[in-house]
Amino acid sequence: MPDPRMPLRIIPLGGVGEIGKNMYVFEYGDDIVVIDCGLMFPDEEMFGIDLVIPDVTYLKERRANVKAFLITHAHEDHVGGLPYILPEFPGVPVYASTLARGLLGNKIREHKLHHNPLIALEPGDETAIGPFTVIPFRVGHSIPDAMGIALRTPVGTAVHTGDFKFDHTPVDGKLSDFHILARLGEEGVVCLLSDSTRAENPGYTPSERTVGEAFREIMEPLEGRVIVATFASNIARLQQVLDASSQFDRKVAVIGRSMEQNFRIATDLGYLKYEPSGIVPKEQISSIPDSRLVIATTGAQGEPMSGLSRMANRDHRWVDIQPGDTVIVSASPIPGNEEYVARTIDNLFKAGANVYYHTIKRAHVSGHASQEELKLMLGLTKPRHFIPIHGEFRMQVQHGRLAIETGVDPSNVFIIENGMPIEILPDGSARRGAPVPAGYVYVDGLSVGEVGEIVLRDRRALANDGMFMVVITVDKQTGNVIGRPEIITRGFVPGNEQDPLIQTTIEKVIVSIENPGEHISEVGLLKSQVKDAVSRYLYEQTKRRPMVFPVVVEV
Amino acid sequence: MPDPRMPLRIIPLGGVGEIGKNMYVFEYGDDIVVIDCGLMFPDEEMFGIDLVIPDVTYLKERRANVKAFLITHAHEDHVGGLPYILPEFPGVPVYASTLARGLLGNKIREHKLHHNPLIALEPGDETAIGPFTVIPFRVGHSIPDAMGIALRTPVGTAVHTGDFKFDHTPVDGKLSDFHILARLGEEGVVCLLSDSTRAENPGYTPSERTVGEAFREIMEPLEGRVIVATFASNIARLQQVLDASSQFDRKVAVIGRSMEQNFRIATDLGYLKYEPSGIVPKEQISSIPDSRLVIATTGAQGEPMSGLSRMANRDHRWVDIQPGDTVIVSASPIPGNEEYVARTIDNLFKAGANVYYHTIKRAHVSGHASQEELKLMLGLTKPRHFIPIHGEFRMQVQHGRLAIETGVDPSNVFIIENGMPIEILPDGSARRGAPVPAGYVYVDGLSVGEVGEIVLRDRRALANDGMFMVVITVDKQTGNVIGRPEIITRGFVPGNEQDPLIQTTIEKVIVSIENPGEHISEVGLLKSQVKDAVSRYLYEQTKRRPMVFPVVVEV
Repeated sequence: MPDPRMPLRIIPLGGVGEIGKNMYVFEYGDDIVVIDCGLMFPDEEMFGIDLVIPDVTYLKERRANVKAFLITHAHEDHVGGLPYILPEFPGVPVYASTLARGLLGNKIREHKLHHNPLIALEPGDETAIGPFTVIPFRVGHSIPDAMGIALRTPVGTAVHTGDFKFDHTPVDGKLSDFHILARLGEEGVVCLLSDSTRAENPGYTPSERTVGEAFREIMEPLEGRVIVATFASNIARLQQVLDASSQFDRKVAVIGRSMEQNFRIATDLGYLKYEPSGIVPKEQISSIPDSRLVIATTGAQGEPMSGLSRMANRDHRWVDIQPGDTVIVSASPIPGNEEYVARTIDNLFKAGANVYYHTIKRAHVSGHASQEELKLMLGLTKPRHFIPIHGEFRMQVQHGRLAIETGVDPSNVFIIENGMPIEILPDGSARRGAPVPAGYVYVDGLSVGEVGEIVLRDRRALANDGMFMVVITVDKQTGNVIGRPEIITRGFVPGNEQDPLIQTTIEKVIVSIENPGEHISEVGLLKSQVKDAVSRYLYEQTKRRPMVFPVVVEV
Repeated sequence: MPDPRMPLRIIPLGGVGEIGKNMYVFEYGDDIVVIDCGLMFPDEEMFGIDLVIPDVTYLKERRANVKAFLITHAHEDHVGGLPYILPEFPGVPVYASTLARGLLGNKIREHKLHHNPLIALEPGDETAIGPFTVIPFRVGHSIPDAMGIALRTPVGTAVHTGDFKFDHTPVDGKLSDFHILARLGEEGVVCLLSDSTRAENPGYTPSERTVGEAFREIMEPLEGRVIVATFASNIARLQQVLDASSQFDRKVAVIGRSMEQNFRIATDLGYLKYEPSGIVPKEQISSIPDSRLVIATTGAQGEPMSGLSRMANRDHRWVDIQPGDTVIVSASPIPGNEEYVARTIDNLFKAGANVYYHTIKRAHVSGHASQEELKLMLGLTKPRHFIPIHGEFRMQVQHGRLAIETGVDPSNVFIIENGMPIEILPDGSARRGAPVPAGYVYVDGLSVGEVGEIVLRDRRALANDGMFMVVITVDKQTGNVIGRPEIITRGFVPGNEQDPLIQTTIEKVIVSIENPGEHISEVGLLKSQVKDAVSRYLYEQTKRRPMVFPVVVEV
């Protein structure tokens, strides 16, 4: 029997004030459901880190309460954390729509996550999980079957949009579930959590269908090969490549591990429609005339190891870019990837291709709602409280302003950061709760959470000015230094041990430890003396600060 | 008497296919003039590097031939290399316009470059230097008195635009020298080198004056403080801050070392007009009511140590951002700075300010020409040959297309990279010459050119997975290992020497060197054996590859 004064707690563990690693906790009494479990890719200051996942300390401390993971769609920033986090929650089911389950199936096999059942949750379903009624609704996005999720709870209905846009002419013909949103709005929505990624953008995001028009316009006059790079998961984009190619009597080769995998899964599940004869295996592309070939591949973000980037560098097993090729980079650079994308486009031009990219031709549209769509979402759901989610802090601020414009009470708009709970009380009012643990967990090789700020700080120091090691041998009995100190250095000077700087540093070391009249009996003291003398001398000489390691060997 | 078959050689040593470190060599027989001498800021893969300057090996090998450095304007990407390169060319004069000389004066004092005379070269002048007649012409740009430079030579006239736009309503009222360009075009221009930075952008770049209108629109209704961040060298922008402030009866405080310096120099040289009573020293801003104060500062690129970024982090000596403040970030992020700018804007919002920035309000315009202006430049000069300069490779490609649209023969458009000469022959035809040395010289602390690819490669390796040092003591006589090997590691695991991984690694080291029946008499062999064993073991255990350093001390 729940306490009638008990609040619904909404806690972001990822996905506000940042791009990626989306995760939202909804807690009522002893029951928790989690929406999404994403990863983010490291920024340039996270040296050597492979991935970043949310800190789930809060969930681990309430392991028995966690009843379900609900997945809005199978993009990495919404599901990429599952392989690292599910093992902490054996037996907890994962709910997802058909395509998401198809794509997750691979992850589950690869990471041997057989202890978590995968349960169907389709747009329009209603499912009870503890005190929650889960109502997924279809939204438009750059992957089919993307959903938002409404949760009916004892204190009212919360609506989480997921990543969304409203596309009135979607490629698969499946419209967003306006009627569910309208019904929820009529019944009353106590809190809306909505996607802020494009909250700075006025107007409407164009329909995905406009990209197909751009493809056809670009392809029609061409005689050479066409290479289209896009996200491996953007099945609608791939459908449009297939449609345009078939219209101009070109065959399509799908190249790139993740895209080939997704192409197969989407085909098997009925998400892609094409004539089998319109497809050519990558091994056979050389038998197809240039004017009859389209290559679909990954790497639209310029990722250095991706298909497109290797093709541009003539380092790809199946395709080298050649003069006469036309490349369509069907994506916009995600923040942080601008330089990679710029470099890849430059290399494509240098290899002789003509390139259509984000600033030149509209061969891409966003999967996120612009301001007018965000206002429509607010207008349909008429929420009492509003939490902008996804996107950076400044985008949430803009989204908050839009909510106020549409009639949300300014004091009911909560701009929050990860780990900051909002509590909805039974009377429908809301307040901020005390912060819970939230933050970054670094995945580096096999280690999850072991590499932390100290290790990163050391990597940053090493990256800046390298290392400088001084090896000194000391007679344990007398405390006297034996022989000449040895220097090993990397990332500081070109490393020639005959360098005059190295030789004069050795002299400095010898002077610093020759302290007549007094034996240095303490190794710790000797080390810090050497370290200080060397650091100071190197800085004077070079204005750089390598990490100095004194090694004292006592014999 | 010059050989009548002698070509004019135009050699970019920086400034094509990249952003920054602009430098162009014009060589005719034994005479060389150099246009600009810039620096670029390091990209994210150049760990620890402070600055990048052009490789001037080609000039050093012809030292006696270098007759002049001609400066188009005093932005760092056009003059920042002078302090490092001029010492190689004592006595060679530097030609620049009044403001540029004013700004360079500081550099010359700071770096003690007294061996190079600074000579006046104003828009509209004509000066003979060896076989060249130098004709500077005024262009619009984000600094006053910016110039392009035409060179009349025995084989024809080459025109170098510098950074430019055509502003028909410039803040200082000084129009671009259309008539000089038109006259040169009528006489015949054998080669045009033109700024490609905005060649992807259709239409016209708006006038700098529109920014003043935005400032007034933003400022008018405000009651709190206004903080405007922009480039320290954008004197016209500063003039518009002064004008808008005076209109709304606000005093201006100029804060930030480089901006204060430029403000003083520009005032002294007559480039800024304001009532002295409209200025308030930074020490006295607390005595001014919020509604009467405007602060002009640096940091519009989000640079971590800049004024704006420190104000946002409440780490500034004179100004902490407070609720009620309005911040105008009057700049667009330069490629590579997007994340810094985003972080600074987020921090300003978090500190309670309202922020106007590039995606929200037009409080900034570019200083570079868009497509219609580029076509106008082509139409005025009617060049026989065309070399797109500045900007990235893809922008040069677009600019080349514009040139062809305006009538340049496609075979006369040269998309080139640094170090690739174009030779103009006496008959006015052009051909590619053999490449000359060109590239990056890294400035790191006091060293110029010492840090190269090997050092950077080591820094990258250290940055990725850190270092792992194994110290082994060996008896020189017997070859036996004495004591237990010692481990020092940074940037790899949290560094606790009690870590089980460290302990098992020590065991692996002991096993790898215990090779019964055979003494390890060779230190080199022992080292490589330890290195291999440790690297392999650590990779197996962690899927990471720290730099492993075996240190063998023989006693």
